[in-house]
Amino acid sequence: MPTDQQSPIEVTAFAWVPPFARGFVRDLRVRWALEEIGLSYRVRLIGGAGGTSFGPPRPENYLAEQPFGQLPVYKEGALCLFESGAIVLHIGGKDERLLPRDEPGRGRAIAWMMAALNSIEPQTFMLTVLTLFVADAPWSADARAAVTPFAAQRLAQLSASLGDKEWLEGSFSIGDLMMVDTLRAIPDQALVATHPNLAAYVSRGTARPAFRRAMEAQLADFIPDQAAA
Amino acid sequence: MPTDQQSPIEVTAFAWVPPFARGFVRDLRVRWALEEIGLSYRVRLIGGAGGTSFGPPRPENYLAEQPFGQLPVYKEGALCLFESGAIVLHIGGKDERLLPRDEPGRGRAIAWMMAALNSIEPQTFMLTVLTLFVADAPWSADARAAVTPFAAQRLAQLSASLGDKEWLEGSFSIGDLMMVDTLRAIPDQALVATHPNLAAYVSRGTARPAFRRAMEAQLADFIPDQAAA
Repeated sequence: MPTDQQSPIEVTAFAWVPPFARGFVRDLRVRWALEEIGLSYRVRLIGGAGGTSFGPPRPENYLAEQPFGQLPVYKEGALCLFESGAIVLHIGGKDERLLPRDEPGRGRAIAWMMAALNSIEPQTFMLTVLTLFVADAPWSADARAAVTPFAAQRLAQLSASLGDKEWLEGSFSIGDLMMVDTLRAIPDQALVATHPNLAAYVSRGTARPAFRRAMEAQLADFIPDQAAA
Repeated sequence: MPTDQQSPIEVTAFAWVPPFARGFVRDLRVRWALEEIGLSYRVRLIGGAGGTSFGPPRPENYLAEQPFGQLPVYKEGALCLFESGAIVLHIGGKDERLLPRDEPGRGRAIAWMMAALNSIEPQTFMLTVLTLFVADAPWSADARAAVTPFAAQRLAQLSASLGDKEWLEGSFSIGDLMMVDTLRAIPDQALVATHPNLAAYVSRGTARPAFRRAMEAQLADFIPDQAAA
């Protein structure tokens, strides 16, 4: 679904980020969820030309909308949300293709979404920090080697839970959306590839037409490097 | 509210953990939420005698209930939930004292809960790992010094958002419950104390009768060290 500047739903996105972050800014999760259920949205681009390192400039008073200066912010009528998890949960509530209506099924989908955000990502985030933000420290490789087993254990457990299922609980849900997006962002993808079922799961998720449209839309919104320079 | 072995709600807890983890096992969040709205629960103790390091023994097939072998698992009728965030959200849905009924207010409370789980904790979790699990590595202090500014920035932003308010959004919610529990678990509490409004916020949260009852109940369920030895 193309973005529509008349849509009642507004999603913020960055006008520019460094190349390593493109395709990984978290408005992607929100665009993906909206695409899955065919809802259009308008984009409010922030940051933009002049950004030369991680952390594009933010508009004045942006912290009043997003307390940590992060992305995305989601607006819909009187609703103003931050945190991709809260936004995707809200969108999920609109359509059972993302979130089952029955309480046990709904609870499981939410549990897997929370697992992505709080059981997988805190482990893999350490690898991201050590790989991207303090990679030059003389102890960085040792630290990465020391914390990798924590992440690897969680991925092995996730692989065991997934087994040969297509999605974590029968049909695709916000739990899968968040898990796939978390797994594909791990800097050392060999950790995922070690588990062929997890690698195939990520491939299935990112092959979904809604994911591809969301990705294309995020990439298309970045201004060219020349303009940013 | 005393625990009640006839309650339709079951919460798992560990029968034994090492001293540093007591009062911080995540069934506390769930007990706290239930206490806030006066719901009784029954406790299923797992692990127990014989545990001598972090990670008490788990019952057979426990991974089928909790994919990462963590705590707590929550059962209520046909509902079987894992992830403290998913469980607290479910309990919040029962009572507006934990989660406002109006959509904008509900969304804000959930956004703050997600912020605790995914914007604060991934940052502070690195400090926990470096302090508790790889403290003996020769590079541990350097690594802690390198990643502390990430956590400190988030806490400064949280302090600015809280300002002189009692709770993050007017009245107490699952957002505050999760944020207070996340902040009090940071190993270097000086990071919190730097912001007097955050320190007072944590004190207000942990002074709530429901928190105190939850804490007492968790601590009371641990078997004595002598029995575990």
